[in-house]
Amino acid sequence: MNGDFSPQEKDGFYKAVFSRRDVRSHFTAEPIDDMVLSRILNAAHHAPSVGFSQPWNFILIKDKQARREVKESFERERSRSSALVEDPKRSKYLSLRLEGILDSALNLCVTYDPSKFGPFVIGRSSIPETGLYSVCCAIQNLWLAARAEGVGVGWVSILSNNDLKRVLGIPEHVVPVAYLCLGHVTNFAEKPDLESAGWLNRLPLKDVIYYERWNNAKDSNWEQIQEMILSNFD
Amino acid sequence: MNGDFSPQEKDGFYKAVFSRRDVRSHFTAEPIDDMVLSRILNAAHHAPSVGFSQPWNFILIKDKQARREVKESFERERSRSSALVEDPKRSKYLSLRLEGILDSALNLCVTYDPSKFGPFVIGRSSIPETGLYSVCCAIQNLWLAARAEGVGVGWVSILSNNDLKRVLGIPEHVVPVAYLCLGHVTNFAEKPDLESAGWLNRLPLKDVIYYERWNNAKDSNWEQIQEMILSNFD
Repeated sequence: MNGDFSPQEKDGFYKAVFSRRDVRSHFTAEPIDDMVLSRILNAAHHAPSVGFSQPWNFILIKDKQARREVKESFERERSRSSALVEDPKRSKYLSLRLEGILDSALNLCVTYDPSKFGPFVIGRSSIPETGLYSVCCAIQNLWLAARAEGVGVGWVSILSNNDLKRVLGIPEHVVPVAYLCLGHVTNFAEKPDLESAGWLNRLPLKDVIYYERWNNAKDSNWEQIQEMILSNFD
Repeated sequence: MNGDFSPQEKDGFYKAVFSRRDVRSHFTAEPIDDMVLSRILNAAHHAPSVGFSQPWNFILIKDKQARREVKESFERERSRSSALVEDPKRSKYLSLRLEGILDSALNLCVTYDPSKFGPFVIGRSSIPETGLYSVCCAIQNLWLAARAEGVGVGWVSILSNNDLKRVLGIPEHVVPVAYLCLGHVTNFAEKPDLESAGWLNRLPLKDVIYYERWNNAKDSNWEQIQEMILSNFD
């Protein structure tokens, strides 16, 4: 079965992949339409999950007081982590805009509940982390769907999970996986912010691909694909 | 900025999300075109990553001997995990088709290398797992891109990571995150295999959404969205 996607459908899909950004600024005050938000959450809920365990929950946060507390957690953690790096990187790090907690229309905490449908979940016995991995797949579905809907998403990872659990009343056995800021934006940046800021470059695609074994970057059986990768995507 | 996706582009994107399946059977012998594979890998490489660290690698595996060893690992782990559950679930579990290691066109191991661009990665100090989470986002991009290209993907998680590391020569500090089987298929199932098999049902969307705090399933501020979710997606 090939070609059940038209060229236009493929283009729509890839447009979401390549124009998606991790958004920390450019948020506008415009609220997210409930229907749009429902579609975004429904896309997340249709992610793959180990043993079909659907171990995710989505906590939608509009309340400003809760968000202020989360922002304080961000500020403590940013200050703590900036001490781990030396100037000039430290100053650069502290100059970067890294969150949109209060100026985005909506915050969203995505959690992992290992007890859902447990304790025996098909495919989770050998590698228990696959439960967490499933939640990440849902987050990426959400992120891409938001992009297709014109909604920016920023993942704030400079936070204390203990603070999140306290502020949002998350029980001991549940893991906060992502804290996201969602909202309409004035524009989506052409490149990732950290690339534009000169922090790091995107690696050439060929540098992340190995053939048959770790660290094996060349194999005669694979010449053609290497050529494709070199000529098309570097 | 709204509406930079046409209805057709949105449809193409959502088609990938809703028709994507975890494929364990229906693989055909047709090889994956190198250009198609390049596009799928390039989509994966354009996933978000904490601090733009791009900590993923993709090991492409065609070699049958390596795959046979991985399949032996699957069989050992399946046998081991089947002992954790009692009949009738045990018999049902053992009757399910759970991998396509040898009959898919290509196997692919996706790994996480925490040393890449390290040790200081922006946003990874407070929650080190965000490195692993980034790799999962890449896997979901890959999975959706494959679907748009008509290529099935199955994630085999009934495996020993130690076996994978040995067979593929993966160094100690690198984590195998996913072992995927890729190939063209005779068809994509309408529903997830575990849903069709009566193992579990998809939860109603409203059951995975909370408002403001954990376990808070109702809030008057959110009435409209709850209604949307109930009427459109259950």
